[in-house]
Amino acid sequence: MTTTKGYAIGVDLGGTNLRVAIVSREGEIVRKIKMPSTDQVLDSILHAITEIKPEGLVGIGLGCAGIIDRKHGRVFTSPNFHAIEGIDLVREIRQRFGVPVVIENDANAAALGEKIAGAGRGFDHYVLLTLGTGIGGGIIQNGKLLNVSAEIGHMSINADAEKCPCGNNGCLENYASARAMIAKAVFMLEKETESMLKECCKGSIYKITPEDIYGAALEGDTLAREILRDAGRVLGVGLANIINIMSPEAIILAGGLIGAWNIYVQEAIKEASRRAFRELFEGVKIIPSSLGDDAGIVGAASLVFMKTAETQA
Amino acid sequence: MTTTKGYAIGVDLGGTNLRVAIVSREGEIVRKIKMPSTDQVLDSILHAITEIKPEGLVGIGLGCAGIIDRKHGRVFTSPNFHAIEGIDLVREIRQRFGVPVVIENDANAAALGEKIAGAGRGFDHYVLLTLGTGIGGGIIQNGKLLNVSAEIGHMSINADAEKCPCGNNGCLENYASARAMIAKAVFMLEKETESMLKECCKGSIYKITPEDIYGAALEGDTLAREILRDAGRVLGVGLANIINIMSPEAIILAGGLIGAWNIYVQEAIKEASRRAFRELFEGVKIIPSSLGDDAGIVGAASLVFMKTAETQA
Repeated sequence: MTTTKGYAIGVDLGGTNLRVAIVSREGEIVRKIKMPSTDQVLDSILHAITEIKPEGLVGIGLGCAGIIDRKHGRVFTSPNFHAIEGIDLVREIRQRFGVPVVIENDANAAALGEKIAGAGRGFDHYVLLTLGTGIGGGIIQNGKLLNVSAEIGHMSINADAEKCPCGNNGCLENYASARAMIAKAVFMLEKETESMLKECCKGSIYKITPEDIYGAALEGDTLAREILRDAGRVLGVGLANIINIMSPEAIILAGGLIGAWNIYVQEAIKEASRRAFRELFEGVKIIPSSLGDDAGIVGAASLVFMKTAETQA
Repeated sequence: MTTTKGYAIGVDLGGTNLRVAIVSREGEIVRKIKMPSTDQVLDSILHAITEIKPEGLVGIGLGCAGIIDRKHGRVFTSPNFHAIEGIDLVREIRQRFGVPVVIENDANAAALGEKIAGAGRGFDHYVLLTLGTGIGGGIIQNGKLLNVSAEIGHMSINADAEKCPCGNNGCLENYASARAMIAKAVFMLEKETESMLKECCKGSIYKITPEDIYGAALEGDTLAREILRDAGRVLGVGLANIINIMSPEAIILAGGLIGAWNIYVQEAIKEASRRAFRELFEGVKIIPSSLGDDAGIVGAASLVFMKTAETQA
C-alpha cells in the first residue's frame, strides 16, 4: 500500500528561497528543487509541487517564516516575508493536490527536522535557533516539537531601544542577525570607516553579505571583526535567556551565520557562559545543525507522517 | 488501602516563609502550618513535617526557590534564599520519614498547583509568574508541567544594565519585583523626594512594603504611582517576551504584588499589548492566580501522587 510506505513533500518558505523536496518516512531527501521566492508565492509553490510530485504522495508539509494561524492554516504575519501573509495556503494546496496539508513555522519545522534526522537525534530537550536574515526558534521537549510560536528573535533584550519592524523594541534579531550585521557595516562604511569591506563587494557597499564580513574578519579587518563580535555578544544574551528559561540539554544553531562560528558563535558562547546560571550553562551543549538548509524541509515532511499516523490511529 | 487514598505533604520553601500542608489527591488542603524561614532550613522542615504528619502519608513534595539539581535532589543555587543551597533535602527527608520525596522549583510547583485546583484548570498551555520579592516562573504545556528551569525573572531585558545577583545583567526581576520597587522607593526618599511614603512606615523608610506603596498610590501619591507604573511597564516587556516565545493561552500571575493589580498589572498588560505580536496577544488571557500562596503546596503535593502513580504503573 502506497500510504504506509509513501513519501511526503516538504516545503520550506523561509523568505529568500523556496525549497521543495520529496522526503521519506526516515527523513531522507529523495529529490529537491530550489528557486528564489517571488511575490507570487502560491503560484510558485503549486508549480514546484506539480513538478516534483511523486507516486504515493502521503501529504504536504509547509514550513513558513512568520506567526502561524494554526486554526485557519495560514500565516498571520511574517515580518521578513510579507508576500506570504493572509493566503489560505493549506486550503489552496489541499484542493489542488487532494492530500493532507500541514503548516508549521519554518524554524519549528527545522527543530523537528534535526530531531528526525540531524543533530537533535541524541537529545530530548533542546532549542534550535535559525541565524540568518532574521532569527527564528523552535523548541523540542520530551522528544517532541512544542506547539508554540518560539519567536526567540523577537524577544526584547534592550527594552528601551529602537523599534523592531515587529512592533516590539530592542529585539534580539535587531542586533544579532545577518540583517543587523549588514546594516551596521553599511552605516560604518558610509561614515568613511577604514575597512577592507569597502573593496570586497564589487564597488557597492550596499551589496555586502555576511560572507564578505566573515572573510574580511578572517583577514584581520578591524571593522568586520567588531561587527561579528558585537553581534555574537548580543546573541549570547539571547542564549543565556534561553538557558535560564528552558534549561535545555542542547542549543542547535542553524542558518547561514553559523559559517562564522569561530568569531560570532564563539563570542556568543563566551557571553552566555558569563550570564546564564552556571549549573544550567554547564548542562547545555551548543552545537551546529547537521542538516543545514534541509532541516525545515525534513521537519515539515515529518509532520505529515505524524499527522497521518494520528488520523489512522 | 491507605496508599490508594492517602495524603501527601506539600512543602513550600519560597524564601520568606515555610509552609507545610496535608493535601488530598484532589488538591484539597486538609491542614496547613506556616512559619518564618530560618537559616536552619532542614531542621525547620523536619520539625514541621513531624508536627503535621498524617496517617496514610504517600509522600512529601518540596517546592523550593532556586535552580533545582534534579539528579541529586537538592538546590544548586537560590539567589534569594542561600540557606537552602547544597543541602541534601530529598535524601534527608526520605531517610527521616521513609516515604518518597520529590523536589521541584517553587514557581513550577505553583504552576502545577493552579492546573490541579486553581486558575489553570481551564487551560492546557500557560505560563505562571510569581511576582514577589523575586520573580519566578512555571510553564504548563499540553496540560503538563514542563520540566524546565523557567527562571523568567532572570531573563535579561536590558542587556547592558547593571548586574543582577544571579550574574546576568538587567534581569526582569531587577525592575519589576517587590525588591526592585522597595529599592527605588528608598532611593527616591533618601534623595528627599516629596511623598506620603515618608510617613507611612513608622518613621523608617527602610521598612517600606509593597503594600505601603500601593496604599499611597491609591491615595494619589505621585512617587508611589510612578514606582508601580515603571515596574509594571517592565513587567510588560517580560510578558511580551513570554507571549512571543511561548504563545500561551493564559498567563497566570501569582504572588503578593498582584494585590496592586489595578496599577502595576494593568500597566504591564498595556505595555505587553503594545509589544507582543498582535495575534498572539489576542490569544492570551492574563489572569490572577486563584490559589494564592497555596498553589506551591498543592503543586508540590500533586507531584508526589503523579510520581507514585508512575511507579505503580
